[in-house]
Amino acid sequence: MSKENDLIDEFNIIAKFFTPLTKNASGTFGLLEDAAVLPPISPQQEWVVTVDAIICNVHFLPNDPIELIARKALRVNLSDLAAMGATPYGYTLTIALRKNLPDSQCLLKKVSNGLTIDQAEFGIHLIGGDTVSTNGPMTLAITAFGIVHKGKLLRRSAAMPGQDLWISGTIGDGAFGLKVAKGMLSKQYLELVDRYRLPQPRISLGCRLSGIAAAVIDVSDGLIRDAQHIANQSNCRLVIDGSALPISESVSCIIADRSEMLKLILTGGDDYELLFTAAPDAITQIQQASYELEIPITRIGWVDSGKGVDVLDYNGTKLNLLAESGWSHF
Amino acid sequence: MSKENDLIDEFNIIAKFFTPLTKNASGTFGLLEDAAVLPPISPQQEWVVTVDAIICNVHFLPNDPIELIARKALRVNLSDLAAMGATPYGYTLTIALRKNLPDSQCLLKKVSNGLTIDQAEFGIHLIGGDTVSTNGPMTLAITAFGIVHKGKLLRRSAAMPGQDLWISGTIGDGAFGLKVAKGMLSKQYLELVDRYRLPQPRISLGCRLSGIAAAVIDVSDGLIRDAQHIANQSNCRLVIDGSALPISESVSCIIADRSEMLKLILTGGDDYELLFTAAPDAITQIQQASYELEIPITRIGWVDSGKGVDVLDYNGTKLNLLAESGWSHF
Repeated sequence: MSKENDLIDEFNIIAKFFTPLTKNASGTFGLLEDAAVLPPISPQQEWVVTVDAIICNVHFLPNDPIELIARKALRVNLSDLAAMGATPYGYTLTIALRKNLPDSQCLLKKVSNGLTIDQAEFGIHLIGGDTVSTNGPMTLAITAFGIVHKGKLLRRSAAMPGQDLWISGTIGDGAFGLKVAKGMLSKQYLELVDRYRLPQPRISLGCRLSGIAAAVIDVSDGLIRDAQHIANQSNCRLVIDGSALPISESVSCIIADRSEMLKLILTGGDDYELLFTAAPDAITQIQQASYELEIPITRIGWVDSGKGVDVLDYNGTKLNLLAESGWSHF
Repeated sequence: MSKENDLIDEFNIIAKFFTPLTKNASGTFGLLEDAAVLPPISPQQEWVVTVDAIICNVHFLPNDPIELIARKALRVNLSDLAAMGATPYGYTLTIALRKNLPDSQCLLKKVSNGLTIDQAEFGIHLIGGDTVSTNGPMTLAITAFGIVHKGKLLRRSAAMPGQDLWISGTIGDGAFGLKVAKGMLSKQYLELVDRYRLPQPRISLGCRLSGIAAAVIDVSDGLIRDAQHIANQSNCRLVIDGSALPISESVSCIIADRSEMLKLILTGGDDYELLFTAAPDAITQIQQASYELEIPITRIGWVDSGKGVDVLDYNGTKLNLLAESGWSHF
């Protein structure tokens, strides 16, 4: 009850920090209604909806800058839209904050500032939200909305034997960045922390892959684990050529010294690159997309008949993958 | 990482407890994709979106039955849709559960069971979701989707002087029910706990009020506070006749003994009744709706020029309202 805590009023919070994020878009009603209305889309388009929550100490560290936490919460959802080939439209935000937090106004201002930056970067706005108190860790739950042309939706289930397996960007940076942020690796690799804290959702690539790629997924839980999703849902086997994995210079330096960390490239999450399969004759289009969008895209394997995911080492020998092949929440 | 906790796998959880909730609806892809697709609607319709989270110890008590917690999480969102005049279509669910919870499978089964009951009751299904771990209290964040005919959307901002103020059902039961659940009131009023734990979203009434009511809101934060939202957003004054408030027999008995609890009727939340304004000549239609839907609807005041909310006592004297006029999270 307000008697128990007169620090901030939920509705002042909304007016001050969140209503500006709606950019007065039609249907958001300045966040003053019980609900919002999505704008009409053409009969040739569809709404795509995705939901992802991030929680302190699970998805981010207590010392991570608040602005970046908010932006990451948004970006992991935009990455899901990218993997479906959708163009982002907007999002709802549920934010749970500890009761009686002395600096909650300051914290919410930072959340709002972070989201403002990314709204401009991705051309989206806030649609609605809920601000609640908790006696647990800070939690941001986002539902993101995108639009896709009918028939252009990308799926995980479209891989077929004979296709190539590709990945955008470099892999492993997110997981190694987390280790640097935790002080488990030298600060000389500080730029990896940025990869962990502020992933780059591959929106433009996702849209471009419609009609080029077959199965697509974003690598959030770890390369092998996400590859397994494609394999399971396409009912085929993915073979990853371990020697072909695109890794950054920093990660390359780290594993040169500490080879026990090699498997982190395969199992670490938080990369938010697009992993996709495509017919062999799509190579020219993929290279063209890579060139125009200035995003490295690397062929890292192929699709075969069978089940599961195999990783081959430098000699073409199958690696013995352990049970722990990615991030699992429970 | 799964090495640290091999109890349950997130994807098994989804397949076991949540995929059945999609009812194989087109666009949900069995929850196996990065995102879901909303079905096409006619150009005469619009999508309405609302979001509400409920958190243990804030919105429900640790001992509340899990099935009812899940249903309440859904119902508070459906109540928001009702207040906009929308027909529910579906929802996304984010569930945050404590890590290493020994009975998490059992708990999730109960969540799923509860949602199954309400899905049948309201003709909706799960669209998508996220299952994450937390070191805090159990949290359920829901984004609900409804459909409304263009021009039929109900708003908080349409009240005008001269209109009557109405409310559905009885008021105060939710707040008194919470006190019974906490052991602060006699168990003889146990049926009030049901009102607290399992609110009845006024879906059919909300749809029916399109074209009859002017401003509408659902009473979640407390009668006065929610009346203030209508007053603020309609730029007028709401006058509540305290002697006209519809209260249940149980609440009537309680306040006969303990008059200091009277104000809880005005300020307690969790009723999820619809509070609305309507032109005086709408009375016949309102009575007809009340009769056909078998929902009591009571005229409890009127709209005047000015600002804010006034409550008159049995003598027509203005009550001195305290600052704490409803639920506030911070």
